[in-house]
Order: sequence, then C-alpha cells, then structure tokens
Amino acid sequence: MISEKMVGLVKNSSVIRAMFEEGKKMAAEFGRENVYDFSLGNPSVEPPEEVKEAILEVARDPDQNHVHGYMSNAGHEEVRKAIADNINKRFGTAFDASNIVMTVGAAGGMNVIFKTLLNPGDEVITFCPYFGEYKNYVSNFDAKLVEIPANTADFQPKVDELAKAITQKTKVVIINSPNNPTGVVYSRATLEKIASILESRQKELGTSIYIVSDEPYRELAYDGVEVPYIPTIYRNTIVGYSFSKSLSLPGDRIGYLVIPSQIDGYADIFAAAGVATRILGFVNAPSVAQLVVSKCLNATVDVSVYNKNRELLYSKLTEFGYECIRPEGAFYLFVKALEPDDKAFVARAKQHHLLIVPGSTFGCAGYVRIAYCVDHDMIERSLPAFKKLAEEYN
Amino acid sequence: MISEKMVGLVKNSSVIRAMFEEGKKMAAEFGRENVYDFSLGNPSVEPPEEVKEAILEVARDPDQNHVHGYMSNAGHEEVRKAIADNINKRFGTAFDASNIVMTVGAAGGMNVIFKTLLNPGDEVITFCPYFGEYKNYVSNFDAKLVEIPANTADFQPKVDELAKAITQKTKVVIINSPNNPTGVVYSRATLEKIASILESRQKELGTSIYIVSDEPYRELAYDGVEVPYIPTIYRNTIVGYSFSKSLSLPGDRIGYLVIPSQIDGYADIFAAAGVATRILGFVNAPSVAQLVVSKCLNATVDVSVYNKNRELLYSKLTEFGYECIRPEGAFYLFVKALEPDDKAFVARAKQHHLLIVPGSTFGCAGYVRIAYCVDHDMIERSLPAFKKLAEEYN
Repeated sequence: MISEKMVGLVKNSSVIRAMFEEGKKMAAEFGRENVYDFSLGNPSVEPPEEVKEAILEVARDPDQNHVHGYMSNAGHEEVRKAIADNINKRFGTAFDASNIVMTVGAAGGMNVIFKTLLNPGDEVITFCPYFGEYKNYVSNFDAKLVEIPANTADFQPKVDELAKAITQKTKVVIINSPNNPTGVVYSRATLEKIASILESRQKELGTSIYIVSDEPYRELAYDGVEVPYIPTIYRNTIVGYSFSKSLSLPGDRIGYLVIPSQIDGYADIFAAAGVATRILGFVNAPSVAQLVVSKCLNATVDVSVYNKNRELLYSKLTEFGYECIRPEGAFYLFVKALEPDDKAFVARAKQHHLLIVPGSTFGCAGYVRIAYCVDHDMIERSLPAFKKLAEEYN
Repeated sequence: MISEKMVGLVKNSSVIRAMFEEGKKMAAEFGRENVYDFSLGNPSVEPPEEVKEAILEVARDPDQNHVHGYMSNAGHEEVRKAIADNINKRFGTAFDASNIVMTVGAAGGMNVIFKTLLNPGDEVITFCPYFGEYKNYVSNFDAKLVEIPANTADFQPKVDELAKAITQKTKVVIINSPNNPTGVVYSRATLEKIASILESRQKELGTSIYIVSDEPYRELAYDGVEVPYIPTIYRNTIVGYSFSKSLSLPGDRIGYLVIPSQIDGYADIFAAAGVATRILGFVNAPSVAQLVVSKCLNATVDVSVYNKNRELLYSKLTEFGYECIRPEGAFYLFVKALEPDDKAFVARAKQHHLLIVPGSTFGCAGYVRIAYCVDHDMIERSLPAFKKLAEEYN
C-alpha cells in the first residue's frame, strides 16, 4: 500500500535508529546500567539555564498572538535580524534579516535548500564518511549523491578527487565540519583548496556550484581549534545551522539557513527558500523556539562535559589498542573496526552490550562510530567491555 | 539557479501570502485602522490560558533533556497515548499510541502521509473549492490532483461525480470539513454516501482508496452542528489534525496523523510515516509543543468570538446584497463575486481597502474568500466599504 520509494526507505531505515530502539529493549532485559548505548547523537548535556529563562519570558509575553501566530514563512523578522547581527559580530560578515531563513532544524534546512536548488538528475557531492541521511534528502528531489571516498589517513576530505568528480550537473557540494561521524574539523587550508577548485570548475563549466555547509556541530570544538566560516572563504556558500547540539534542543527542531547576498541568483534563491519552506509542509520554523533561541545567541551548553568524555574515551580506547583519529569537534569517535566487516564487528560489540554504529552507514566501511554524548559514568562502566572486546581480537 | 519546479512555484506563490504582504504595505501607507485585511487565516483569538500554564509547567520540568531531546520520530509516546485516549473518549474509537504520529502541523502531516502513500502518477481527488496548497503537496511527490467541480448550490461536495472520477490510480480522496474556504460542514449523509461509493469502487478495482481527512477546523463549529468523525464512517480513513486553530498555535506547527489499525496496510503505513517524518526533514514534531498540547486536550480557544464575527459579517453582507452560504464552521465566508471575474472583483475591493482572496485560488472562480478571524472592530469599521463596493455594482 505504501509508495515504492518508501518500501526501500523503510527497509534501509536508519541503522542508527534501529540501534536506539534495540538499546531500549536491551536495557529492559539486562538493566539500564549494564547496557552501553553509544549509538545516537542525542545530547546528554542539559540546555543552558538561558533557555529556560527565555521560555518563561516568551510564555509571559503579553502579545500571545505574536508568540504563537503565523509570521513570514522565512521566520520572525526580529529573530532573523538578531541572528544576522550575531553572525556578523562573530565572523565579520554583513548579513541582515534578508539573508536568514529559519528552519525546522538542520534537516529541515537541508531539505528546503535542496528543494530550492535541485532538478531531478542534478548531482550533490559529499565527502566520505558523511551523515547517511544526506542520501535520503537528495533522493527526495530525485537528485544523485556522488561520494568522494574517505581519506582514512586523517579524515580530512580527499580534495584531490573533487575536481574530477564535478560535472555539468554538479549543483551542490556538502561540507560538514565538525564532522559527523569523525569529529574531524576541516582546516582552513583544506577549505581554501576546495574553494579554489570550485571556483575554477565553475568558470570552466559556466555553472554555479554551491557549498551547503551543514553546521550543527559548529559550537562543539575543542582545544581552541578554528572552525572557519565558509562564506568568508567561498562566495557561493549557503550555511545550514542548527541549535540542536549547541543548546541541546534537538527535539525542538530549530535552525536556520544563511543565504548570503553575494551568491549567484541570491534573490531567486531566497524567495524560493521561503516558498519551499511553505510547500514542504514546514510552513515556518516553530515560533516559540525561534523566539527562544534569539534570546540565547551567546549561550551554549557546557562543552567541557563532552570534552571530558572525549578525553577519557579517546585515551582509553587507544590504550586498549583501538585505532582512532583524535577528534577536534562534535561528540563522536570514528574507530577502526577490529575486523574488516564493520557490521560483524558491531554485532560482536553488542554481545558485550556495547551499542555502536557501523561506518558503512556513513559511506565508510571498516570503521564504527561511537557517540560520546552520554553520561560520563556510562563511559567509565563501559571500559571493561571495550577492553574485553579488543582482547577477543588479539 | 533555482530548480525548474521552483520557478513555477515561486511565480504562482500563494496569492494569499502576497495579499498579506500587501496588507502590511497598505497599512503603512493609509494607517492600520483604514485597511481591512480579510486575507489570511491567522487566528485573532488568543490561545487559552491553559497553553500558558502548560508552557510554564514544561519549562520547569526537572528532566529538561526529555523536554528538549530527541524522541521516536512519531513523537513522545505519552503524548500520543494522551491524544489517542482523548479521541477515544470523544468519538468512541479504540486508538492507542501506535495509531498516532505527531506532525509539524496539518501541512506537515499531509506531506508525511502523501510521501508515505503516493507513487509518481498516482491520483488524489479533491472537491472544489479546496485549500490551494493541496496542489503543491501532491506535486511534491509527482502525483496528480484531480478536482471535482464545486456545487455552488450549497457547497456540499458533488458526490455524484466522485464514482466516475475514481480510476485505478486513485490513492487518496481529501476531505476538509469544516471547509476552507466555504465554512461548510459536510453532513453525515454526504460522508456516508462518499464512503459507500469508495467502498464499492475499491472492490471493483481491487485497490485501496484512503480518505485523508484534513481537520484543522474541527473545533470551530457553530450552532451545535455535528462534525462527524470519518474513521467511524469509512474504514480506510487517515486523519490529519492540527492545533493551529483550536488552540491558536499556528506558528508552533503542531498536529498529528491518526492512522487507524483497521486501514489496509496499517503496519507498513505506520512504519513508513515515521520514516517519512524523518526523511522529509521534520525528524519529529516540535517537542515542547507536543508536551504542551498534550496538557490542553480539553481546551479550545473562545469560539464565541469567531461566532460573533460570523453573525455580524454574514448578516451585514447579505443585507448589502452579497450572495453567500451561511457557514457552519471554520472562520471564512465564501461570497459570490459581483462580477464574473473574481480577480477583477478582488482588485476593485482593494480600492476600498478591503483585502480578500479570489476563489480561483481555491479552484472555484467567481467567488471570494473573506477570513473573519480578525478583530471585531475591524469588521465594524469595514462595513461601509463593503456597502460602497456593492453599490458600485448596482
């Protein structure tokens, strides 16, 4: 009865989510404290106090029709202005409200900009490993996701393969840094190389190629590493931002697109993004959440909690003999599986009550993703299991 | 630069929205009190006090990661349970949480169920006049909207034309009652006739034809009129509900789908709806809004305010010589234009600072929609303009 497309999609439905459901079952069977669920990127750190204060303020706003009513599809004007000002202060840009479209999280923003830009058959390039949902978002508009294989040396993108992957049909290159699943932050040098390749290929082909920079992890960066602001490096950049991780509000579905005035076809794209927001059924980003985040633009969750998790897990896993790049952002470790088949390795880990996600979900077989947005105690409790698992392979 | 589909969509972008923007401009030029904006269905009545109390309660919930975190894509289990129980109490059904998918308003719900059900080329039947966005929602999945012409005698649907409009490709029939734009409530007799036609055509064709009942106006009904619950009349019914009007929360984007266990292919459809919610970029309905509405299931806005508007506007317009069916629900009057070309009539009305929407937007030329979800005072101030407009045509 369901559509043919959905039959396949349901079958391949996110391994990550399936793992999440399985984790709940195992917790019921073995006790919550004996199952180590590293599968889902659901923030464990509480939203900062500013969020609560902002909600109380919004609830008490005398103009409740403004708080809960329709606004422009692109979002509340004053919220978009506040966000533009905040970005300008941080990155030296010159955006205003007409460069911001509020979205239902980053996932909503990606769908809006893909609906806006993509014709059937258009190509979207992504660097492996990448967030597996990109494939579905691109397929929603009958476009094609083109994967550039992973550089497993340091998980910086394989920039050298970019030029030849670009065709007349390339419309978008997705950048996701800090990266899910590797936690790697793309360096300024890498991004400048990408920009220069795109600029020269655009000129050769007479096309416009947009970077869509998916940035839910921007604020989760460690050791003072720079996360460069890509619109200042490459002109045709559109940013998709989310407050899901920076304020621990993933369930609230709130984010925004930045559509700089400098990009090719800005006016059409901005207008179409508003229409796409409406037509896709979002209509507008949730109003209360818009107003709340606009009051919390200088707040973030306590990143030191994730950092503590990172330090412990990274040091212990490498001590146990696991191979892993030290992540500089996000809340994931991307670890080499101890056998070639990452799915078999994940199944083996499950026998030790360790729930982790196969790298093949992210276009990078032979690795696994460990999400450390979890209680520090759980990490400590899980260490003997990780140790035993490693020993099994020796 | 934008996709070919979007070029057309931006061009035809909602006349209603354009009107809304124009209204803001005219208000700046002529003074807000001298412009009578009846164009948009943006509720004027404040949300009930229960909403504020619920938000305060949620903001103070000690488990803020539950309040703001991810949950199942279908929504919070306890919210879905509470909604199912509430429906059961009101309509004698036997739903539980596994029949409810929380959605980003009714528009989100329609897109989720269309993504779930529709193959390219499938047909969706709608009775004119209808909410114009249906065309876009259906087109998102490359399906075809089939219009059954309006019955301008009383704006009950032309049931007699339904049987022959159904083909092998018919997957969905949309019902929207109380109706936007007419305010008409489809009678039990009408719905039973529709059910019997669908049942016999399903059998003949060996297909499943689903009613998708779009019900944002269910709670806005006047004079004690019955709004029958369609799943109790026709087995293959899926309901799309929204709290946008019942609680005046359109900006919050919160609603739900009811997917009864009795429908053909229930298990696949329920599973696919969850996946569609994720893949379309909604991920889940906004978490805070889910928790808030679940605490307000017995509350509604003060419908008597809309009723007062309805009484005044209907009695005065008919007194001035306008032809109009007395609406029994929603907050719209659907009035016969005083010249055959409804767009010309709308332009003429604008000269009197009356902003109304042409019926052709709703698949019914020769009529106009007047949204009376506005300040009662504005209606009173607008009456001389409506009178003068009518006199111009005498």
